Amino acid sequence: MNSSDVGLLYIQEHWDSFLNGLKEFVSIPSISTLPEYKGEVLHAAQWLEKYFKKLNFHCVDLIDTGGHPIVFAEYKGPNPVMTLLIYGHYDVQPVDPENEWETNPFQPTIKGDYIYGRGVSDMKGQLYAQMFAIQAWLAHNPLPIHLKYIIEGEEEIGSPSMQMFLNKYKDMLKADVVLNCDGGIFAPDVPSITYGLRGLVYFELELKGPKQDLHSGQYGGTIRNPIHVLCELIAKMHDENGKVTLPHFYENVRPLSEEEKTLLAQIPHSDEEWKKFVGMSQLYGETGYSTIERIGVRPTLDTNGIIGGFTGEGAKTVLPSKASAKISMRLVPDQESEKMEEYLREFLQQHCPPEIKWKLILHSCAPPAVMNLHSPYMQSAVNALTTEFGKKPLFRREGGSVPIVAWLQQILRIDTLLLGFALPDDGIHGPNERQNLPLLKRGAHVYYNLCKELLNMVRK
Amino acid sequence: MNSSDVGLLYIQEHWDSFLNGLKEFVSIPSISTLPEYKGEVLHAAQWLEKYFKKLNFHCVDLIDTGGHPIVFAEYKGPNPVMTLLIYGHYDVQPVDPENEWETNPFQPTIKGDYIYGRGVSDMKGQLYAQMFAIQAWLAHNPLPIHLKYIIEGEEEIGSPSMQMFLNKYKDMLKADVVLNCDGGIFAPDVPSITYGLRGLVYFELELKGPKQDLHSGQYGGTIRNPIHVLCELIAKMHDENGKVTLPHFYENVRPLSEEEKTLLAQIPHSDEEWKKFVGMSQLYGETGYSTIERIGVRPTLDTNGIIGGFTGEGAKTVLPSKASAKISMRLVPDQESEKMEEYLREFLQQHCPPEIKWKLILHSCAPPAVMNLHSPYMQSAVNALTTEFGKKPLFRREGGSVPIVAWLQQILRIDTLLLGFALPDDGIHGPNERQNLPLLKRGAHVYYNLCKELLNMVRK
Repeated sequence: MNSSDVGLLYIQEHWDSFLNGLKEFVSIPSISTLPEYKGEVLHAAQWLEKYFKKLNFHCVDLIDTGGHPIVFAEYKGPNPVMTLLIYGHYDVQPVDPENEWETNPFQPTIKGDYIYGRGVSDMKGQLYAQMFAIQAWLAHNPLPIHLKYIIEGEEEIGSPSMQMFLNKYKDMLKADVVLNCDGGIFAPDVPSITYGLRGLVYFELELKGPKQDLHSGQYGGTIRNPIHVLCELIAKMHDENGKVTLPHFYENVRPLSEEEKTLLAQIPHSDEEWKKFVGMSQLYGETGYSTIERIGVRPTLDTNGIIGGFTGEGAKTVLPSKASAKISMRLVPDQESEKMEEYLREFLQQHCPPEIKWKLILHSCAPPAVMNLHSPYMQSAVNALTTEFGKKPLFRREGGSVPIVAWLQQILRIDTLLLGFALPDDGIHGPNERQNLPLLKRGAHVYYNLCKELLNMVRK
Repeated sequence: MNSSDVGLLYIQEHWDSFLNGLKEFVSIPSISTLPEYKGEVLHAAQWLEKYFKKLNFHCVDLIDTGGHPIVFAEYKGPNPVMTLLIYGHYDVQPVDPENEWETNPFQPTIKGDYIYGRGVSDMKGQLYAQMFAIQAWLAHNPLPIHLKYIIEGEEEIGSPSMQMFLNKYKDMLKADVVLNCDGGIFAPDVPSITYGLRGLVYFELELKGPKQDLHSGQYGGTIRNPIHVLCELIAKMHDENGKVTLPHFYENVRPLSEEEKTLLAQIPHSDEEWKKFVGMSQLYGETGYSTIERIGVRPTLDTNGIIGGFTGEGAKTVLPSKASAKISMRLVPDQESEKMEEYLREFLQQHCPPEIKWKLILHSCAPPAVMNLHSPYMQSAVNALTTEFGKKPLFRREGGSVPIVAWLQQILRIDTLLLGFALPDDGIHGPNERQNLPLLKRGAHVYYNLCKELLNMVRK
């Protein structure tokens, strides 16, 4: 850190106040997927609104979407030389399994280098660190960048209002580049830039067999058991080499370029560490690919949940009427969710016995994206990281989905810089979600540096 | 009906009072599997106790088992010529899925020829009809048969105390033959005797993969998904011909005798009716066997329940840590549950990938049984049915399990007459359980006739 920089000094001196603000933000249970938390989701949006108003932003608004509102906040510095659109989300995942949390998910708790709480890593911590970097800048100087924040409350439910919003407010949202903080870093001392994201398509498959639950003694052995059929269908979706066997599944997967192969091979990954973290004695995946490639470059099909028949304690001898599963696919360019749905329907049509009725419900989808590795904005991001970490960042493709990146490419024609400071073992979406605090402070520095780099780049 | 018989007249004249008693008995929610109903289970036992005391039985007792008590009631007629042990159970299954009931399961409701309520067919109706037949007899005459009732409250949880009880009270329970009313009849106008029952062994299989739920984007594709493994294991347990593929599964299945084949072929079964009742467009089962054989003579393996991962509403992108299934087998002579557990463990050992930890819990087991078709007691039962229905009964083997039959054979060396009047579409264990009332009245006549036939037989 260049300690003579007033902005970086501000971050250092006001870190405790940042932590207090973060705790306040995380303690709002803004779970977008559960209707009973609607008020809390709004509460989180209002918390942001108040924050931007305090920073004297020129325009701060909660834009109604029909669902949870989008926070729009605009800062027009003096003689702005460029426009930066900053994307974030203020909603979080549900907390179940609740009994596996060691602290209250909505009473953020600092233990050692970490702060624990739902949403602290995904993504309230990242978002607030970026906002804090701007606060640090504005504490001493005006910023000659036109800033536009769009912070949604529906990311964890698949951003159902976002595409409509982007289309409706195309003009208002014009910008040169997007900064999205909803991303991760490879390791605390290994800076990295995520330049690719997998897409997602999430289904629910419901099977119905007999018209009601039957006695497994009186009827067992004479009709199809829908649990068996569901298991057979799911089992048929993979082969013994970990490949998805759904016809056409891999058809549009874009091959890796030599440049990408080289970049990805530089990531210092350890399968042993991976095993230790997940708590399994061996890894498993598509034959012929490394773990790094399996996560970021290869598509997957996973069953996220399954239920059917009697699931209470003890024994009940039912031949069940129904069984269902949540089945999702992580997609990579140039796979399309519509095609995947088509392939899955064809597969079910072909493999589900005629006496079992099936219904496929699409819950959500998100396109995959790959970002431009060679833009001047990307170079600014590289410089901002290099200054803070003293080494050049690695480039990687992530396994998760950030659909907004593809939508911004498609609808607004703007590319994204995805710069986040979540770690792979932060446990996002699971119990005991956490964020590394020294790393988050470095993140705030990087967001601050990025403003400088963007200004230098434009002024050259 | 021989209308000059005072007993049969009594049944006719007091039928309304029988129905009131049955409603009272069924309205007690004696669900043995749910701990919170413990008091209600006792309440049902006390209801029986009161009933037998009112009939002036010589000994009426609730025998403590550590679990739910066994009602023991003894009637020693003048100069008894034989001893009849009557078995029944007063406990019932849980009511879930509760929202599929059209009436309150514990407010027995008569609609047309049927009475609806939990336990009305399995087996409070059958049991009380038998007791009522004895009441009819005793209303006018003493009965020169020594009667011993054992009525348990743990049948629906696998009768965990029964074997110990039979061993402990061997002398007290000595008898010539057992009458067990926990059975069914082929159709309202087709008398039948069940001479075979399948056994049951019921397991819970738990799989554990990663140490906690993970993000399916960050980890999907790099480790085994325990839901997939569970589905693959379940799928591997059957082949495409409906045969169970667990090694050794069919090894000890006793082949059908020619006499049995002939008897079973006489059962007027309609696959079309069966389809209509279960609400499926086609039947399915082990290739090479009729539906009647698939139900009664062939063993099966069914998954009764499955659960894993996220099963709430909507979408959650977890890679689950756990998945589990309830897996049960219906056994036939001479299969043994201990062997089946061994085979299943070997199968899991062989097919479950080493990084997925599995645990197999045995919930309950019951041996299969076949009864003597050629005893004089069986002839008495045939005569009792023939008198009431005007035609000879069919002989059949049932798909359900009544473990007490095998235990009485093994421990007390007494064979059972299984004479019940439940219909295949009574919906036992499911919602809207019902009992056909005109048939139940015929059942009371048959139980009454049986006393006469047994006396005639002995006196010959």
